[in-house]
Amino acid sequence: MVDTKLRRSGASILKRWSGTWCAALMGGALAATALPGPASAQMTGPITLQSEGSFFVGGQDEQSDGLSRTGTSGTWTVDQMYVQFQRPYRVSHLPIVLIHGCCLTGKTWETTPDGRMGWYEYFVRRQFPTYVIDQVARGRSGFDMTAINEVAAGKADISHLPSIFSAGHESAWTIFRFGTQFPDAFPGLQFPIYAAGPNGEFWKQMVPDLNQSLPQPTPTVAALSQLSINLAGAILVSHSESGVFPFQAAHISTQGIAGIIAIEPGACTNLDVAAVAKIPTLILYGDNVSKFTNWANSLQACTQFAAQVTAAGGNIQVLQLPSIGIFGNSHMLMQDRNNLVIANLLVQWIEKNVEGTATTQ
Amino acid sequence: MVDTKLRRSGASILKRWSGTWCAALMGGALAATALPGPASAQMTGPITLQSEGSFFVGGQDEQSDGLSRTGTSGTWTVDQMYVQFQRPYRVSHLPIVLIHGCCLTGKTWETTPDGRMGWYEYFVRRQFPTYVIDQVARGRSGFDMTAINEVAAGKADISHLPSIFSAGHESAWTIFRFGTQFPDAFPGLQFPIYAAGPNGEFWKQMVPDLNQSLPQPTPTVAALSQLSINLAGAILVSHSESGVFPFQAAHISTQGIAGIIAIEPGACTNLDVAAVAKIPTLILYGDNVSKFTNWANSLQACTQFAAQVTAAGGNIQVLQLPSIGIFGNSHMLMQDRNNLVIANLLVQWIEKNVEGTATTQ
Repeated sequence: MVDTKLRRSGASILKRWSGTWCAALMGGALAATALPGPASAQMTGPITLQSEGSFFVGGQDEQSDGLSRTGTSGTWTVDQMYVQFQRPYRVSHLPIVLIHGCCLTGKTWETTPDGRMGWYEYFVRRQFPTYVIDQVARGRSGFDMTAINEVAAGKADISHLPSIFSAGHESAWTIFRFGTQFPDAFPGLQFPIYAAGPNGEFWKQMVPDLNQSLPQPTPTVAALSQLSINLAGAILVSHSESGVFPFQAAHISTQGIAGIIAIEPGACTNLDVAAVAKIPTLILYGDNVSKFTNWANSLQACTQFAAQVTAAGGNIQVLQLPSIGIFGNSHMLMQDRNNLVIANLLVQWIEKNVEGTATTQ
Repeated sequence: MVDTKLRRSGASILKRWSGTWCAALMGGALAATALPGPASAQMTGPITLQSEGSFFVGGQDEQSDGLSRTGTSGTWTVDQMYVQFQRPYRVSHLPIVLIHGCCLTGKTWETTPDGRMGWYEYFVRRQFPTYVIDQVARGRSGFDMTAINEVAAGKADISHLPSIFSAGHESAWTIFRFGTQFPDAFPGLQFPIYAAGPNGEFWKQMVPDLNQSLPQPTPTVAALSQLSINLAGAILVSHSESGVFPFQAAHISTQGIAGIIAIEPGACTNLDVAAVAKIPTLILYGDNVSKFTNWANSLQACTQFAAQVTAAGGNIQVLQLPSIGIFGNSHMLMQDRNNLVIANLLVQWIEKNVEGTATTQ
């Protein structure tokens, strides 16, 4: 999976490396081996697991009068969060939780749309117990269809229909920063753009998003808090829409949240500075941010938030990949061609900032 | 995972074994080792994978005027089928595809609601490349929200709202044959019934089902046909609502469908007898079938269908577990306490009927 080309681009990145945590990342395993990880069978040989499986966190029984379009009544269960996990045979890191963004599911972290290794497998191979969730109301967590059926059965007015959003290819193109205008892609874009062509594999990952209809914050946040407590120390990795979820979970309780990595958070406002100041945090952005007003605004808000957390004594950094010589990354950087280079950077950051002096073998 | 109690019940089952394929099952590995599988580290030690990941089959781009509740227009992708897979390090069987039933997702085959090994892991440990799907319009395959948003935006009449069904706890109780009346369970029931108590883990698996709104047969059928062809020989395992899907896929093409195991199919009517006669087939039912009119009718219809297939020269069997001394199984037998005993029976049936003379190590 880790081909020569990727290793070459990794080496090239190292040469251009800069920034405040550069020195730490250059030490240890990173300098001794080629990117994007230990040069051993661990990354290319069999995947060996201690255990694997799935479970739910949260959820409660409710009475529904909309179990079908004729308005069938009964008890059913809502607001549960589906969690899938793999525990590697050899564990050398804290558990990591991968939290997808808008209009997507846990699929985000699996095989990339062009068939390469995703972050789920990568973190397992790097000996992290790895947890992938489907947000409440998405994917295998199900969603609440009660209001839709109540409207169909004439029991409720049309205004009760939930807000259901899906990004069309044209709008997703700019949200995901493939280019400023559909279907033109940025030169040097790291995203495997042919997978976002007509009938492309990437688009098949996109599913309807009901978050606008959920209580705020989404029940996913309380479930993430509970999951972190249950894991007794977890690193929460969020993306885009879910960017603020780990911060909101920290407001409920900092217990169990060992570290936060927010990949391209959509927002950074109304957060609990004091709580986040207790948790090592990395906020990461890809390339071409300044070319989009919404993303430039997000970056600015997150930079301001980070300054507040720093002033409160916290360990937080906002990193734009181009500032360390990594160019061309889209909003979907966990699927970009250099996705494992970036995952490896996260491992290095975790080892330095969350796990102290630990190093990979 | 394989505890002493389970092994004892396996031994007890063997003593009472009867039926036409009994002799085959008693031979080889089954007689030499305790149920429910080879007595080796393969079943209890680390899980070793050659590869794992996920992809989609099917799906096409469409124009939607209901991407949001205000009626946003754009291109998006529908009818794709999500497929998750694990290929064991050592492969000794044909690929197997696990297809969930109504109101459920691929979660069906993972960890049971009381935390035991599910069939996904079991078949991987038995050295099957194992594929778990989410039906089209379910789970990580997404669903079509266009009509809902068109109604919300005033672009379509209420009658256009899709049929969305979820079984409440009370009705699911009898559909799944936990007992004849909610919340009383059959004495000796194999389902871990405490997991179906208030706020129980089992109920969290249930999600809204839009199949009634899909073209018939569901696009899942064509996707299963394509998946079988791509795998160049797959055993399709269906359940309940999906019971007929492999038979419907066989009508499209028998290519790639090496065997069919229908777990408690809801129906067996209007199927292609000549096509199914080309494929070794097992139809399996649990206990207490005769106590429910709908299930008694299903069993009768499937028995008649099997007679037609046999008359056409096919290899098909309808097996009720009580007829071979296995009692207490619910409709959710892949999650019952003896789920691995049953999975082991399926492996034995596959080795004898699908793979010829192959035996497990």
